[in-house]
Amino acid sequence: MAGRAGPAARGRRLRERLHVVVLAGGAGERFWPRSRRARPKPFLEVVDGKTLLEATLVRARALTDASRIWIVCGAEHAGALRRHTGLPASRLLVEPRRRNTAMATGLAAARIASVDPEAVLVTLAADHRVPSASAFAKACLRAARAADRAGVLVTLGIRPTRPETGYGYIRVGPAAGPAFPGLHRVGRFVEKPEARTARRFLKQGGFLWNAGIFASKAKTLLEEIAGLAPELDAALARLRPRGARAFSAAALRAAYAAAPSLPIDVAVLERSRKVWTLPVSFRWSDVGTWASLAEELGVDARHNAVVAGEAILEQSSGNLVWGAGRPLVLFGVEGLAVVDAGDAVLVAQLARSADLRSVVAALALRGHRELL
Amino acid sequence: MAGRAGPAARGRRLRERLHVVVLAGGAGERFWPRSRRARPKPFLEVVDGKTLLEATLVRARALTDASRIWIVCGAEHAGALRRHTGLPASRLLVEPRRRNTAMATGLAAARIASVDPEAVLVTLAADHRVPSASAFAKACLRAARAADRAGVLVTLGIRPTRPETGYGYIRVGPAAGPAFPGLHRVGRFVEKPEARTARRFLKQGGFLWNAGIFASKAKTLLEEIAGLAPELDAALARLRPRGARAFSAAALRAAYAAAPSLPIDVAVLERSRKVWTLPVSFRWSDVGTWASLAEELGVDARHNAVVAGEAILEQSSGNLVWGAGRPLVLFGVEGLAVVDAGDAVLVAQLARSADLRSVVAALALRGHRELL
Repeated sequence: MAGRAGPAARGRRLRERLHVVVLAGGAGERFWPRSRRARPKPFLEVVDGKTLLEATLVRARALTDASRIWIVCGAEHAGALRRHTGLPASRLLVEPRRRNTAMATGLAAARIASVDPEAVLVTLAADHRVPSASAFAKACLRAARAADRAGVLVTLGIRPTRPETGYGYIRVGPAAGPAFPGLHRVGRFVEKPEARTARRFLKQGGFLWNAGIFASKAKTLLEEIAGLAPELDAALARLRPRGARAFSAAALRAAYAAAPSLPIDVAVLERSRKVWTLPVSFRWSDVGTWASLAEELGVDARHNAVVAGEAILEQSSGNLVWGAGRPLVLFGVEGLAVVDAGDAVLVAQLARSADLRSVVAALALRGHRELL
Repeated sequence: MAGRAGPAARGRRLRERLHVVVLAGGAGERFWPRSRRARPKPFLEVVDGKTLLEATLVRARALTDASRIWIVCGAEHAGALRRHTGLPASRLLVEPRRRNTAMATGLAAARIASVDPEAVLVTLAADHRVPSASAFAKACLRAARAADRAGVLVTLGIRPTRPETGYGYIRVGPAAGPAFPGLHRVGRFVEKPEARTARRFLKQGGFLWNAGIFASKAKTLLEEIAGLAPELDAALARLRPRGARAFSAAALRAAYAAAPSLPIDVAVLERSRKVWTLPVSFRWSDVGTWASLAEELGVDARHNAVVAGEAILEQSSGNLVWGAGRPLVLFGVEGLAVVDAGDAVLVAQLARSADLRSVVAALALRGHRELL
């Protein structure tokens, strides 16, 4: 157990060195018209009146003290995030431009290591949904302990429940060893598969969904970046020129100007030989599309879901409805997202909601900047 | 030609005795949320910024002088109709209660006969759509002339262009005779058929759509009512008790209290041996449902129609869209009516729009009186 005296014990208990990094980037175009540039997906109130971000912070607080929770976000959302979370400015890491998750994660690791060199990080996204906070906490702590003791990166692998083509997969490798029961080396990372491949993964077993949740010592992550991602490493080096203590705004801008735009998976995890995975079985969704939200809310061939507002559903099934002050009336329709945002109404086939970006592009072309 | 001296010429030219009766009853539930109790289907602005009623009056004026156009309507719409049409109150025949088209037509015939005993009537609905006003006028005048000369009821029969199951049919009987080229006796009236029967009608020929447009002398119609519909005749007799000249409000109420609620087809046309039909080929629609309106507007498997407002259509086809001040965005959907009325939004499968009444019933059950 973390904190007990043992071969991997440090001077301080793990719990006191555990930091949670919440990545809150992303534009959220796939939830238009409910998500907008100024109000991206983490701010969606999808269930129980909580936003995805609020639910994420509840999970983070189950892992560690509120003083060790960090959020990485874009400048355009920093104000809203502070109001929404009450987080002090010092733990809001504001990116001067969007540079994907490798730089966001690297920034967090560098910043946290500067205040706590023995820090162990759990990195996760602000806009996923995990109904069971306790199962999540248990798995994250187990991953963090292994990462701490073995000096590895431990990514959570969700056991798939359907042949999902919207997620990347992790091929489970050999067991990590008797000291780490249940943990495995990563065989390889697999890009989002075709439907047939996804069905084979499910049938064959040994493949897990890559949820993008991983634990590592800050030090381990920075070492792996140094060894595997020299461009990213060089960008991070600019954060503290000539050993400066603070992270100045100018240094941050310089670092981001030099940063590559890569996901952390591509920049580090897929290349590293120190990546393990912890297979877990809790329910998880990246809530990536209206369709996956619908699924999360229990929409199926017989059931509709009404997120908010008043809906009158006649001879209709399999729809997700989100109203805004006036009744939405569905009659004889199936498999739709019907979303009223007050200033615009979307009627979309759920099955095609992964391509909703083309709608947002069409709005931009028509000059509807107020709706973006 | 009407007006020329000839075997059937009267003292006055036909055109001077031709009255148009516009029936403007009906609740228009099938166009919810655009049509409401207080703003029924004739008030729908469906094409070229004209309401169906306005377009009907344009057609009526092509037939006769504005002073011989009459509208029969319910009390709840009388005010709106007067404002909308500028018709003097004397030619607005306001029904104290709804009693279907037999009583409405009988009232008009009795009223018009009281001011013009030699009147020839063309009776039509306020809410149909006929793109060609000139073809329509030509056919109506031809029917009116035959009705005048032969003392018969002449109903227009539209040559079908598709196996429509939403209309009643007229079986064409033998030719009316050498003096009336093109006119036929009615074989029989056929109720709305099953799809298979409708396909047979189309293939076999000799079946016409019953458009509910017919010409007759007022006198002929009243005689047929007297002979075939004694209940209706008795109700009409109450309109002028003891030879009173005016139609008093009390007499009207008494007449309507006694009136049967029947369509004129059932009460008279289907029973009369004096019913002819004039087959015509102009485009006509009763615009009975969102689906038939969509068809009128050229919606098909490849085309959408936007009646009003702004619509953004991505990867969508076969939809009818009617906006109200905010963009309606359709993505990846087919065959829908998406109608924003400001205070409610309808998303309905066009193919099922004939059953939209169940939606209005559901609204009533939920206490949404303001939306009815």
